[in-house]
Amino acid sequence: MARIVMKFGGTSVADLDRIRNVAGRVKRAVDAGDEVAVVVSAMAGVTNQLVAWCQQLSPLHDAREYDTVVATGEQVTTGLLAIALQEIGVDARSWQGWQIPVRTDAQHGKARIASIEGAELIRRMQAGQVAVVAGFQGVAPDQRIATLGRGGSDTSAVALAAALRAERCDIYTDVDGVYTTDPRIVPRAKKLPRIAYEEMLELASVGAKVLQTRSVELAMKERVRVQVLSSFEDKPGTLVVDEEEIVEQEIVSGIAYSRDEAKMTVRGVPDRPGIAAAIFGPLSEAGMNVDMIVQNVSADGTTDLTFTISRADLPRAQATLEAAKEKIGYSAILADSDVAKISVVGVGMRSHAGVASTMFATLASKGINIQVISTSEIKVSVLIAADYTELAVRALHTAYGLDA
Amino acid sequence: MARIVMKFGGTSVADLDRIRNVAGRVKRAVDAGDEVAVVVSAMAGVTNQLVAWCQQLSPLHDAREYDTVVATGEQVTTGLLAIALQEIGVDARSWQGWQIPVRTDAQHGKARIASIEGAELIRRMQAGQVAVVAGFQGVAPDQRIATLGRGGSDTSAVALAAALRAERCDIYTDVDGVYTTDPRIVPRAKKLPRIAYEEMLELASVGAKVLQTRSVELAMKERVRVQVLSSFEDKPGTLVVDEEEIVEQEIVSGIAYSRDEAKMTVRGVPDRPGIAAAIFGPLSEAGMNVDMIVQNVSADGTTDLTFTISRADLPRAQATLEAAKEKIGYSAILADSDVAKISVVGVGMRSHAGVASTMFATLASKGINIQVISTSEIKVSVLIAADYTELAVRALHTAYGLDA
Repeated sequence: MARIVMKFGGTSVADLDRIRNVAGRVKRAVDAGDEVAVVVSAMAGVTNQLVAWCQQLSPLHDAREYDTVVATGEQVTTGLLAIALQEIGVDARSWQGWQIPVRTDAQHGKARIASIEGAELIRRMQAGQVAVVAGFQGVAPDQRIATLGRGGSDTSAVALAAALRAERCDIYTDVDGVYTTDPRIVPRAKKLPRIAYEEMLELASVGAKVLQTRSVELAMKERVRVQVLSSFEDKPGTLVVDEEEIVEQEIVSGIAYSRDEAKMTVRGVPDRPGIAAAIFGPLSEAGMNVDMIVQNVSADGTTDLTFTISRADLPRAQATLEAAKEKIGYSAILADSDVAKISVVGVGMRSHAGVASTMFATLASKGINIQVISTSEIKVSVLIAADYTELAVRALHTAYGLDA
Repeated sequence: MARIVMKFGGTSVADLDRIRNVAGRVKRAVDAGDEVAVVVSAMAGVTNQLVAWCQQLSPLHDAREYDTVVATGEQVTTGLLAIALQEIGVDARSWQGWQIPVRTDAQHGKARIASIEGAELIRRMQAGQVAVVAGFQGVAPDQRIATLGRGGSDTSAVALAAALRAERCDIYTDVDGVYTTDPRIVPRAKKLPRIAYEEMLELASVGAKVLQTRSVELAMKERVRVQVLSSFEDKPGTLVVDEEEIVEQEIVSGIAYSRDEAKMTVRGVPDRPGIAAAIFGPLSEAGMNVDMIVQNVSADGTTDLTFTISRADLPRAQATLEAAKEKIGYSAILADSDVAKISVVGVGMRSHAGVASTMFATLASKGINIQVISTSEIKVSVLIAADYTELAVRALHTAYGLDA
């Protein structure tokens, strides 16, 4: 017996049969004695259609009207799931953001949750009623509907779990958990029974998109235990928890990769204070995030700066730096989008040396050249030629003892 | 310069092009200096899909969840129209029922509007902002969304016009006004520039479904001037007004017909007090409306009772009366669904004799037999064999001088 939040994404509620399937899952939890709140997304494809209509009418549409239109997708799912639950004898009612209320800030279209009023929902859940809550939406200070931005339903679920003081937030999705690496590359990849919030954040930021990053940050801040599991199979998934809850901590939990990177090198820049600001300032102002940065040793008073950005941003970044050529005073820009970032992640690194050197030695033994290196407390990332991605991931998976 | 409510139905907002067309119409009114509130329906087909989903999940679904699902159709249209208006430079915002609020009673799925808070809308309209209001919905005393039942957007528009003290409520539809009769039967039928509320009610109840009956009743009660006009052509429609506003009152305004009738005759019932109640009581309890009723002259202590009901109700009515055969004590039931009701409508009848006799003489001259007759202050209706429908309508249209 526990109080839980169950969250189902768009593919899990894509049609009436799947909604009935979700109702069956919720009923099993209720029958087991759990107090249940369910957070749902729009039926798969609906949000895309609504967004397309707004954009076709006006590329620069009013975000408040966009929110009004797009939030209907989740509203439909809440009503349908409540009906499906009642049909199999489960007491349930739908809740829209404005009814609870889920209060957000004023940033329509990409709002952040400010507070959730949980008392009435708790009262009803204790009385045996399932709360079916629209994800992705709330009500802004102007009393109008606000949405959280794409993928925001994960964040809705975690925030609701915090407000309801739920024991767990179960995120049902089309994968059955978090793996030591991508099973399409390493068939012997293992599903992790538990993973720490910090590890999940690092994995998400390097391409393992199981959970929306904001939802993991919120879970870590509010100490909400999150479980990622399959909506189509009936087996335990991966628990995302505080690292103290992970007793047998491995040094390395997973190997992630990302092909969404591009490398830029600015050659022959004068080696003087302020030059990094001159280069990265304009990129930041244009909304581009720079990731790994390396500065070469200076020679003849000039140096080279190498950094990575999102591959999609490459043309804009080139244009931005070319416009600032006079001001920066470089000799040339080199760009390479044929790269991949490989990351080794694990909270155990904090107390164990030698993780990075194992990585470098493993890649060297396979003849893979490292172009850029960056490290954090619980992560070591390297940039390599994209062709070597699978080879590198497989070799590292074996080297850190992760093969099943 | 006036304050007006413009209402657009589902076919008028069926796709983005039509929504842009509606935005253009609204802009012309705004440019002419009008203060405008727009009431919109769901895009054509959307409501049917949402209703079907609810019914497929559970034939006896919770009306509150049905309302939650179905009200999203209008919500989408309000947001899209607001975007389309802003795109052409018209200040506009969408309003859902709960935001205004439009308060309803507690009858979810077929709610009636209790009150509309118009002050904030008036303030904004006076400041030049167009209010784009979701038809068909409001908020019930339980603070949940309520819908008004199918076709309720007409009623929303009239109620809003009353609350805003609007000069006129323009109902844009796929016909361009109210005609003296169905132009598909009588090509020379004329569009009426004006028609009285009472006439409109009688025409609606006999099959001329231009406006929802409830909306006309409300317009009459609140003295809202309603105009019916085409959303695809740019010309004046028909004004539905108080009869005092109609200076040159014709004696007969229109000829209506309905093929949705069925005739039942209960033969050989004992001619004693209470027999009508014994027959019509069970039908009424089963939710069936009886329309025209004729009782024959008694012979040998028994009589025949003939009445009409909706054709769709005929099987249920037969079953109901057969179940009550012992109690009523009749000898036989005859049913005939091959009938049509022809009605002559006009407020001018109140002060002019001879309307009914003209009708009977005209039908007799064409050899059409009258089966049942019923009259009200402003209407004479007869039941005839369905085969003669077009002949009767054309003959009467000429007889009352309505041909163009």
